Amino acid sequence: MEKIKVVPLGGIGEIGMNCMFMEWDDSIIIIDCGVMFPEEQTFGIDFVIPDFSYLVQNKEKVKALIVTHGHEDHIGAIPFLLEEIPLHIYATRFSTELIKSKLEQYPKRKYAPSFIVVDETTSLQFDDITIRFNRVRHSIVDGVAIIIDTPLGKIIHTGDFKEDTEKIKGKKYPLSSFENFLSKHDKKVILLSDSTNSDRAGHSLSEKDVAKKIEDIFIHTEGRIIISLFSSNISRIKNILRLAKKFNRKVFLDGKSIIKNVRIAKKLGFITSHSNRFIGNGEALKHILSKEILVLSTGSQGEPRSSLRRMATGEHKHITIHETDTIVLSSKFIPGNERAIYNIINHLYRQGANVIYGKISDVHGSGHANQEELKKLISVVKPTHFIPIHGEYRHLRMHKELAESVEHPPQDIILISDGDILEITEDTVKKNGRIPTGRIIVEGDKTEEYESIVLRDRKHLSNTGIVVCTLIANAQTGEIISDPEIYFKGLFLNNETEKILEESKKLVEDTFFNATMETKKSRLEIQEEIRVTLRRYFKKKFDKKPLVIPIVLEV
Amino acid sequence: MEKIKVVPLGGIGEIGMNCMFMEWDDSIIIIDCGVMFPEEQTFGIDFVIPDFSYLVQNKEKVKALIVTHGHEDHIGAIPFLLEEIPLHIYATRFSTELIKSKLEQYPKRKYAPSFIVVDETTSLQFDDITIRFNRVRHSIVDGVAIIIDTPLGKIIHTGDFKEDTEKIKGKKYPLSSFENFLSKHDKKVILLSDSTNSDRAGHSLSEKDVAKKIEDIFIHTEGRIIISLFSSNISRIKNILRLAKKFNRKVFLDGKSIIKNVRIAKKLGFITSHSNRFIGNGEALKHILSKEILVLSTGSQGEPRSSLRRMATGEHKHITIHETDTIVLSSKFIPGNERAIYNIINHLYRQGANVIYGKISDVHGSGHANQEELKKLISVVKPTHFIPIHGEYRHLRMHKELAESVEHPPQDIILISDGDILEITEDTVKKNGRIPTGRIIVEGDKTEEYESIVLRDRKHLSNTGIVVCTLIANAQTGEIISDPEIYFKGLFLNNETEKILEESKKLVEDTFFNATMETKKSRLEIQEEIRVTLRRYFKKKFDKKPLVIPIVLEV
Repeated sequence: MEKIKVVPLGGIGEIGMNCMFMEWDDSIIIIDCGVMFPEEQTFGIDFVIPDFSYLVQNKEKVKALIVTHGHEDHIGAIPFLLEEIPLHIYATRFSTELIKSKLEQYPKRKYAPSFIVVDETTSLQFDDITIRFNRVRHSIVDGVAIIIDTPLGKIIHTGDFKEDTEKIKGKKYPLSSFENFLSKHDKKVILLSDSTNSDRAGHSLSEKDVAKKIEDIFIHTEGRIIISLFSSNISRIKNILRLAKKFNRKVFLDGKSIIKNVRIAKKLGFITSHSNRFIGNGEALKHILSKEILVLSTGSQGEPRSSLRRMATGEHKHITIHETDTIVLSSKFIPGNERAIYNIINHLYRQGANVIYGKISDVHGSGHANQEELKKLISVVKPTHFIPIHGEYRHLRMHKELAESVEHPPQDIILISDGDILEITEDTVKKNGRIPTGRIIVEGDKTEEYESIVLRDRKHLSNTGIVVCTLIANAQTGEIISDPEIYFKGLFLNNETEKILEESKKLVEDTFFNATMETKKSRLEIQEEIRVTLRRYFKKKFDKKPLVIPIVLEV
Repeated sequence: MEKIKVVPLGGIGEIGMNCMFMEWDDSIIIIDCGVMFPEEQTFGIDFVIPDFSYLVQNKEKVKALIVTHGHEDHIGAIPFLLEEIPLHIYATRFSTELIKSKLEQYPKRKYAPSFIVVDETTSLQFDDITIRFNRVRHSIVDGVAIIIDTPLGKIIHTGDFKEDTEKIKGKKYPLSSFENFLSKHDKKVILLSDSTNSDRAGHSLSEKDVAKKIEDIFIHTEGRIIISLFSSNISRIKNILRLAKKFNRKVFLDGKSIIKNVRIAKKLGFITSHSNRFIGNGEALKHILSKEILVLSTGSQGEPRSSLRRMATGEHKHITIHETDTIVLSSKFIPGNERAIYNIINHLYRQGANVIYGKISDVHGSGHANQEELKKLISVVKPTHFIPIHGEYRHLRMHKELAESVEHPPQDIILISDGDILEITEDTVKKNGRIPTGRIIVEGDKTEEYESIVLRDRKHLSNTGIVVCTLIANAQTGEIISDPEIYFKGLFLNNETEKILEESKKLVEDTFFNATMETKKSRLEIQEEIRVTLRRYFKKKFDKKPLVIPIVLEV
């Protein structure tokens, strides 16, 4: 083995669509395969995935997809990759269940990946490369870091992680556990580490701290408690179920994904049975005292048809909000969703309820390591080479500064971007060339290049509206048979509609007349002239250029 | 005088478009007249203003517009109100200058308001009502609270405020100054207080703290310093100019609004002369050592054509970003603008520059009072009646809780909304009825109701795209003369375009045929049937319903 290439296809330069691969000789191993949700203006698209062209072109080489954990930004693009490449998917048990459930969402797609469940005792061999797993804490259970021993050095990929001393299934997973994977014979240690929260000082809030805050709410609340959170945050759900037991509340799970994830977590032993505490049917809620009710719901991002949204707007089948209700939003407010979330909070307040959320109380803690944890990991691993991953450029840059500030900083810190080839040889670790990368839009079961004209058109339409103009000409003589007609959508015409209709019809006629008089222009040429004329007219009139569709029909 | 009505037209239930009025007998006084910038998806509109219908219907009553300070969300809608009602505008000097400059932005509009400059010594008399002003600190200079003495009680409107002990023109403006306006003869004291930051604990960061942080940057920076901030934040600009002098840097003002506001501030004595420090011409920058350059720029919200944006993308005429540059974003990241701002930060980092912003260092402090300041004001004023203003419902609600928590809470706390009539009589202060209110969209010089179909169409277009279908029929026989043509914009058709064109043309033909066969339907009816058919087809095909424009032409 002369060299190993490590290439990110996504997640380095943006938050989300995490995906990278390692290539050596005739082998490729992929690590994670996630989606990115568009921030702010979505223009109707569902999400964005990496461009897999390089992998598809080299599909015979692909030996495995290894998954660090089951969040959408690490597994959501698997159905799209699977359509191109048959895969052996290596993942922990909980992640595997989530991937399977994800594939069920695309019943039209035909593929049968093989699943290999891994855990901290697993050692995988691909040629001269050995792959092991170290459990890490994150806002989902069963997350792992990947330790890759190669003849050219050791590579550690943290996945997403934080430090949290709370036990899972009776075991702790401290950052110091990475020491078990180090050896004094390591020629190189190349650490690829999660940069998501590298701009946050101190230490992330622990799940214990969050649970304590939520316990305070249980202590002081007489009425119903409704907690909205990410349905994959099993540790938090487990802590809340423990509180429900302690404070003698029955639990109503409200939302498909939370029901599914709790079922999986119970099956895998992450949640020990509380079956008798669950309220199976929303109808039953009305027969239970408010002080004995806990609702766990989805919709913490303000999603339009979610359970929390329906409660807030009075459209929920079983839950009408009262003054005595306390609603807790125990989750991040993802940028771009704030307006929708605050709308819900305003609605809930207007109905007199008490609302508690991260900005006013520590009822949520991030799943990613803050600065002190990031530095601690670097101090434990003592990498020779350090590569910040998972983040926008500003996060990577900040992570670099953190790495430089530890007592024994890495000898080399390399900032890479999606598509950069990080080349590892006997002597060096360095950027060497690029492969083409890009973003692919997903809408329903359609995919399209991010730079596509379709998205540009939607943006244009949303800002300016559209003008359609028709005109019928005699195919032989070129004369106008039927006067122009003009149609508008999304234009503020105020009370000038009549005037604008008249003026623009006149303009179209004149343009047509001039175009056909001078020389015999083609229909396409005439249409283009009409388009330009109308755009110019509206620009002058509205200081805006609407999208114009000129249609010259010939009979 | 039997009763006074206080009615908010905007700013209570949202952040922005602050506007309220007081009405008694045959008189109306308006307080503030601002715009609201749309958060997140703007659909091309510029901003939103309150519906002034009630004021227009009662225009003979309107005696005055009183302005608390010169921010857009307090003065931006004045040109639109002026178009309907001639106004006497009472404002402090700096606010007056900004209003005049605002009116110059609408050269087409014809109006000549009269301006009356007020200050802390002014006492205005309207019938039995006396109006005085108390200076307050905010993120703009020359802000005032309004004290309204009426036969039915005293009304205090805080405007926007914070507590800041730093002097302006040698004077302090502590919250305790409100005591000067109180009297033991006050039957009632009705306090209307700014709720913008009622969800923030503690005390707001002072301008001195911010200046200290920025001074640290001056101390530790060898290269150019570029600071981006709101151009109306004169106190901060003044502090930064002082630092420029101390650290011997010349100042380049980059951006029209900052040049204009500094000019006004100098004229009014808020900034004492530093004329010799200013670099008048961007060309001169290249002849000055980096360590002697300070650039003050606009564009802190990531605006597309702003100076900072152009620096970040390498399109600035005079400033190319280097590794030795330090860029400071000394301003709030307004929700909805984060993506644009972080894009700029990422660009700047990629060029190697150092970037410092509020999230990682205290280089910005809000202009609004935090919880401890809000409680302090309530303790000073000791209102009998308390009305939270300026905020979404959650802010008002939180402010109510704060007011309840002070040692001597107000006897009555009333939560009102835009349009609610707060009625003050000899004996009572209570909500009594409503007037119609609403939001008006402004785009260029056009205005339109917020609920207008235009905005709905733009939203629809942006999410789904548009399908236009034409068909020419013989007006006499009803037969199809020319086959249907279909045009798409903003649809992801992938490689199915041909197939979809064919199928939808066929559908249109069939629909037309059936519609004309059965009975003689009108052209409008036929078009509607084609529209419904095509929508159904696309819904089935894409799980989306695009906007469809069916055009049946007859010759």
